[in-house]
Amino acid sequence: MFKNVTIIGDGAMGSVCAMLLCEKDIAVRMWGYDAGQLSEIAAAKENKKFLPGYKLPDTLVFNADDATVFDGTDLIVSAVPCQFMRSVWGRLKKYVPAGVPIVSVAKGIENKALLRPTEILADVLGKNIACAVISGPTIADELARKLPATALAASVEEKLAQKVQRTFNISWLRVYTNTDIVGVELAGAMKNVIAIAAGIVDGVGGGDNAKAALLSRGLAEISRLGIAMGAQSKTFSGLSGLGDLVTTCISPKGRNRLFGERIGRGQNVTDAQTSMSGVVEGVATCASVVELAKKHRIEMPITEAVYQVLFEGKSVGEAISDLMTRRLKAE
Amino acid sequence: MFKNVTIIGDGAMGSVCAMLLCEKDIAVRMWGYDAGQLSEIAAAKENKKFLPGYKLPDTLVFNADDATVFDGTDLIVSAVPCQFMRSVWGRLKKYVPAGVPIVSVAKGIENKALLRPTEILADVLGKNIACAVISGPTIADELARKLPATALAASVEEKLAQKVQRTFNISWLRVYTNTDIVGVELAGAMKNVIAIAAGIVDGVGGGDNAKAALLSRGLAEISRLGIAMGAQSKTFSGLSGLGDLVTTCISPKGRNRLFGERIGRGQNVTDAQTSMSGVVEGVATCASVVELAKKHRIEMPITEAVYQVLFEGKSVGEAISDLMTRRLKAE
Repeated sequence: MFKNVTIIGDGAMGSVCAMLLCEKDIAVRMWGYDAGQLSEIAAAKENKKFLPGYKLPDTLVFNADDATVFDGTDLIVSAVPCQFMRSVWGRLKKYVPAGVPIVSVAKGIENKALLRPTEILADVLGKNIACAVISGPTIADELARKLPATALAASVEEKLAQKVQRTFNISWLRVYTNTDIVGVELAGAMKNVIAIAAGIVDGVGGGDNAKAALLSRGLAEISRLGIAMGAQSKTFSGLSGLGDLVTTCISPKGRNRLFGERIGRGQNVTDAQTSMSGVVEGVATCASVVELAKKHRIEMPITEAVYQVLFEGKSVGEAISDLMTRRLKAE
Repeated sequence: MFKNVTIIGDGAMGSVCAMLLCEKDIAVRMWGYDAGQLSEIAAAKENKKFLPGYKLPDTLVFNADDATVFDGTDLIVSAVPCQFMRSVWGRLKKYVPAGVPIVSVAKGIENKALLRPTEILADVLGKNIACAVISGPTIADELARKLPATALAASVEEKLAQKVQRTFNISWLRVYTNTDIVGVELAGAMKNVIAIAAGIVDGVGGGDNAKAALLSRGLAEISRLGIAMGAQSKTFSGLSGLGDLVTTCISPKGRNRLFGERIGRGQNVTDAQTSMSGVVEGVATCASVVELAKKHRIEMPITEAVYQVLFEGKSVGEAISDLMTRRLKAE
């Protein structure tokens, strides 16, 4: 397994990865784009903004210096929100050591370019970079409490997937491998849009039958687009598809769900976004997915309804009523 | 659509079907195996035991007379718990009119004979009976409140499925057709076992990551057995598979989940069962599924863990720890 890891990003997932890897006696450094914010975290030994209440490991090293943060590293973790990846990796590009693989933990699809996280890495750093992804039902707060969880280590290179699996596997996180990185990244991104819809159902008090139907039909539509884009169908019924979708849609801690709930309760989109701490990945991803659906000619009624509510001022009631009164058909 | 329906069974699902069909101006009669219990429901115009708080329709007719209850009916609804179907239908057999289709709403697998609900009907009433199934994420209490929901009308005869679809579709329940009755019934039955496991995770405070992983891996194992028994894979990712699994595992009202939660909190199996009102279908079904898995040589680690906890005295802690420490592998 890997022995010396540099984590790029000081958000909740970056912090949780640091805690896990330090517990396995791996040397870990954390970098943040804002040196001031990183030094506050270092001083408090706690990420008060994004993962409050958990002490960070004493062995974790903080380093905001672009030129030295990769010294001696044999694995890089990219824990930067999808829409900021291009600028962060553009800044770090000249310091990234050749031959060191990068594991992405971001879940989104870049606006305009419509790229997955590892595609952004390849676009910025060069096509021959070795990439992997960690994904699955992994609400950070529960990982920090060491509650039992599962995840996928995905890479087109099976050996890299297995090495990442061994690096991240621990008694409270069971890691499986997967080689369908396209499916794993698309599923992880698109479920955030369905989670916004699930939150809206919660907000209007729509009930668990409606929410379950939404998850089921939502998974069907994101699978359709995924398969059209080259993903494997079974990935969507696995941990990074169904699994991640479920936890994101039911956890009270899920940001995308909570954002949707506030809209369902009547808050307008701008206010709901301002009231959230941290990035609501599903909002930007929703716009990207609608573009991809158009490009691949895939019908995605739930994603389109979320888009209309978020970007075109459609009322929640009208969106739900439209979904319930479509033409009767076979499943 | 059908115009004259006899509902056999006076539980929660029977009552909700009656409410829905009466709202569509269909003539509906309800039968119960216990004439005294049925007349109490008739007098109160409310099913105080199984669906308290909702007024039953004025047009609903109650009839506990085996000989006349099918007079003029063009559709029969079987709303009897799976393990009681053989005795109820054995009793009614000689009065069932020839050529009238039966829609089953039960979710289970019969012990010993290991039959699905519509297989029990065929076994008792004769092979040439026309059968359909209504299934999906349909917690009765939410249907009674007319919260938006979805369901499947499944039959090997597509025309019957469509006629059942038109009969049950209403503004607050969107019904899809499906011809994979094997898959729909197996999914509906087996999800109750996974729901007990999900309840146990709730009871021990295992968190949403663990619960999502359980749903994902649970759906994978019930799909494996279903496919081995002739079901179609896609049924398990649809409304009667994933959809019903989700609502059963997250709804506070789900009896199987609640039963599991009590076990997770430390109640023993007998006490937990006694404390529940109504049948916990997943308990008997669990024993049937373990037998079927053995017969078809399918590995079902979650179902087997539930079986060991329910029937062999294994502790919850040991069962969870065994599931988390299996050999590392690909998804």
